[in-house]
Amino acid sequence: MTDLRSKTIAGTFCHAPELGSIEILRDALVEIDGRGTIVAVTPAGDPGHAAKRARAAESGALVEAPAESYILPGFVDLHIHAPQYPQLGKALDVPLEVWLQQHTFPLEARYADLAFARRHYEALVEDLIANGTTTALYFATQHVEASKLLVDICLEQGQRALVGKVAMDNPAECPDYYRDASAEEGITGTKALIDYVAAHPENHGLVHPVITPRFVPSCTDPLLEGLGELARQCGCHVQTHCSESDWAHGYVLDRFGRTDAETLDRFGLMTRRTVLAHSNFLTDGDMELIHARGAGVAHCPLSNAYFANAVFPLRAALAKGVRVGLGTDISGGPTASMIEAQRMAIAASRMLETGVDPTLPQAERGRPGSRIDFDVAFHLATAGGGDVLDLPIGLFRPGFHFDAILVDPHAPGGTMRVWDDIDSDADALQKIVYTASKGNLAAVWIGGREVAGTL
Amino acid sequence: MTDLRSKTIAGTFCHAPELGSIEILRDALVEIDGRGTIVAVTPAGDPGHAAKRARAAESGALVEAPAESYILPGFVDLHIHAPQYPQLGKALDVPLEVWLQQHTFPLEARYADLAFARRHYEALVEDLIANGTTTALYFATQHVEASKLLVDICLEQGQRALVGKVAMDNPAECPDYYRDASAEEGITGTKALIDYVAAHPENHGLVHPVITPRFVPSCTDPLLEGLGELARQCGCHVQTHCSESDWAHGYVLDRFGRTDAETLDRFGLMTRRTVLAHSNFLTDGDMELIHARGAGVAHCPLSNAYFANAVFPLRAALAKGVRVGLGTDISGGPTASMIEAQRMAIAASRMLETGVDPTLPQAERGRPGSRIDFDVAFHLATAGGGDVLDLPIGLFRPGFHFDAILVDPHAPGGTMRVWDDIDSDADALQKIVYTASKGNLAAVWIGGREVAGTL
Ligand SMILES: [Zn+2]
Ligand SMILES: [Zn+2]
Repeated sequence: MTDLRSKTIAGTFCHAPELGSIEILRDALVEIDGRGTIVAVTPAGDPGHAAKRARAAESGALVEAPAESYILPGFVDLHIHAPQYPQLGKALDVPLEVWLQQHTFPLEARYADLAFARRHYEALVEDLIANGTTTALYFATQHVEASKLLVDICLEQGQRALVGKVAMDNPAECPDYYRDASAEEGITGTKALIDYVAAHPENHGLVHPVITPRFVPSCTDPLLEGLGELARQCGCHVQTHCSESDWAHGYVLDRFGRTDAETLDRFGLMTRRTVLAHSNFLTDGDMELIHARGAGVAHCPLSNAYFANAVFPLRAALAKGVRVGLGTDISGGPTASMIEAQRMAIAASRMLETGVDPTLPQAERGRPGSRIDFDVAFHLATAGGGDVLDLPIGLFRPGFHFDAILVDPHAPGGTMRVWDDIDSDADALQKIVYTASKGNLAAVWIGGREVAGTL
Repeated sequence: MTDLRSKTIAGTFCHAPELGSIEILRDALVEIDGRGTIVAVTPAGDPGHAAKRARAAESGALVEAPAESYILPGFVDLHIHAPQYPQLGKALDVPLEVWLQQHTFPLEARYADLAFARRHYEALVEDLIANGTTTALYFATQHVEASKLLVDICLEQGQRALVGKVAMDNPAECPDYYRDASAEEGITGTKALIDYVAAHPENHGLVHPVITPRFVPSCTDPLLEGLGELARQCGCHVQTHCSESDWAHGYVLDRFGRTDAETLDRFGLMTRRTVLAHSNFLTDGDMELIHARGAGVAHCPLSNAYFANAVFPLRAALAKGVRVGLGTDISGGPTASMIEAQRMAIAASRMLETGVDPTLPQAERGRPGSRIDFDVAFHLATAGGGDVLDLPIGLFRPGFHFDAILVDPHAPGGTMRVWDDIDSDADALQKIVYTASKGNLAAVWIGGREVAGTL
């Protein structure tokens, strides 16, 4: 295991500074300080390159990535229900409400048992890291203690994480056996987790707390008010679901006469550090509101195929200036891989563009201008997610955390083929997005610390 | 490597005898003869089970699958463009016609070079086997010699395969540098490959030839007539593309005043052993015709997201009695994994059912009744594909070839988590379809011979 803190790594780096723009730095040097932050990025053509490299080598600080490997920013997964990992790949054939009441709430309720919680949270964090997810935005459960345990496990394994105790107190929508007994309990529990993260002796900025109303239907007005007030006081991140399905979207309109986005805003829950999962049914006005507040969207394309009844209008949201990143939505989306999330984001955008029903005339079938390609998906999964979270992650830039993955296109356990005489570096990156998998990840670093792999 | 010919394997077997029905045989025995054909399947509850097991053990013929592993039929990939493997994961952002003319035809033309062909065909066959594809239906290239080489490589690696020299002679749609010089050359070349496969000294029924008009647009009438005549004479399999995209569908209507399916039928190319790739724009009449002829469809859901402008109406075709299997459509679909093809078949069916455009009212958005779940996808990828090909594969039944994969849900290089205290065998199978990958395949057998893995 190679710790890159206070080291300089030489290799070929790929990142996506803007939507649709890829930058490939072949044989560059990235210098990392003792806290895992990038202090300098030196391209091969830079006049100081040779001297820097020699200096690092002399002082024993030079680490060379293997030939033909690529170093990419680690992935930022903006939507994970940590307790749902045991049911990944199950119960995908039922509507959202049934899935919640009959499968998901009973499973989440089991996390009152901390041994059960530890077993499954450890497996999840380990698997996400192995898949290259260096920053994870987690919904935990309603339980304060199990949520604290998830914080502990992220710190133990070294994953950058944002963890929320789920607040849900509405007896009409939450089961008796699994909800906050009152708005007060939801607010107090949320505060308790915020305090726990702040005071944690092992936490030096790696884990952040998140105010997490499950979604508007599961919260009473006093709970939403209290959480909004808490957000104002602490400036913490906020996460919730927004206009995910026809049902959820319609429920909020019925109860408040306003959309999800407008409702969240009125409760003070729409901030620069708010992440709205899904958001498929946003109106134009919602998009403008989200843009104005600086909030962001966690687009979860795989989950949407099962539970959302529609594809998130990604291009429309981007055109309105909405910040967007990607999420797996474990377990609504049956994958722990943000590479698969990128692929599904591309495929879903194509299906929205051309439509799906062959019995309709071509002109009536889809929504032109909806497509993205690998470059946009890669941006969303890295720098885009970092921007949504307002954290310095997802790019190889001075001041950014060195959260990165080492991709070996030739790994025997992988799923890629790159041919030197056929493929350029840009082709290789395209092939990574479309065909790589966990087996191609030779190393994963978070804050310069190698948390998986064998470099 | 464990050869199962003349052996009895004990383990837990899962297969899907009918659409939507899964059969799990826990602790069953499967007896295989010297040619790799299943001669008996004995469930755990069978009265003769203990005696059979003891007898096999005594004679040294018993092989035990590892505890907690599952044995599934190998996958039948009904649509692969073998020469396109080097561009897997590239050029997915252009329309089908541009993709053909600017990327695919130039790449396929390189297979005139047999060294180039060997390098890439070997990699492809190896990777498909490692992904559990035990039977592959291949489009090779226009070149006879390179097509023969693909036959050789399948035999060398032990993959069950159907290989077609691509026939394409229409100067209006095929480039000068890559087409049959005449209809006669297309027919003669096809015959040459058929003869080569029949006379191959190493071939004992593992590889079959396939008459392969690329698609109607790339063939002149005389070529289609000649290939139809050849199909009548030899009874070989036939494969082509059918009504894939708006453009292809419209082209055939313009040229013949008939649909693709009707046109192929008039040329004698619609037989019990015909496989029609894609078929997204079939009319009801087309489906009835295909059903009447006993032909089948290779549904390629991932490729369709990029090139087809629509989702294949799978449920409608199944309701009309059309045989259907799955294909990756390498490289139109950027994966070598039939597990991924299953997942995309499910997701695409859900997106067809609920629609994709959130700005439309729910009732106008999709096509109700279109969904499938994992059980149907698994059937299509195994027994369904076998039925389309009219070959005894895809089930654990006496008389069927023992083509199988061993799935280890706990493989460290895999992507699954199965929990004994939470998941039933049926849950495990569901998790395999939704979350397993190449790293979970511990062994692959074709005709009883272990062709990959380390059992
Ligand atoms: Zn969610
Ligand atoms: Zn094709």
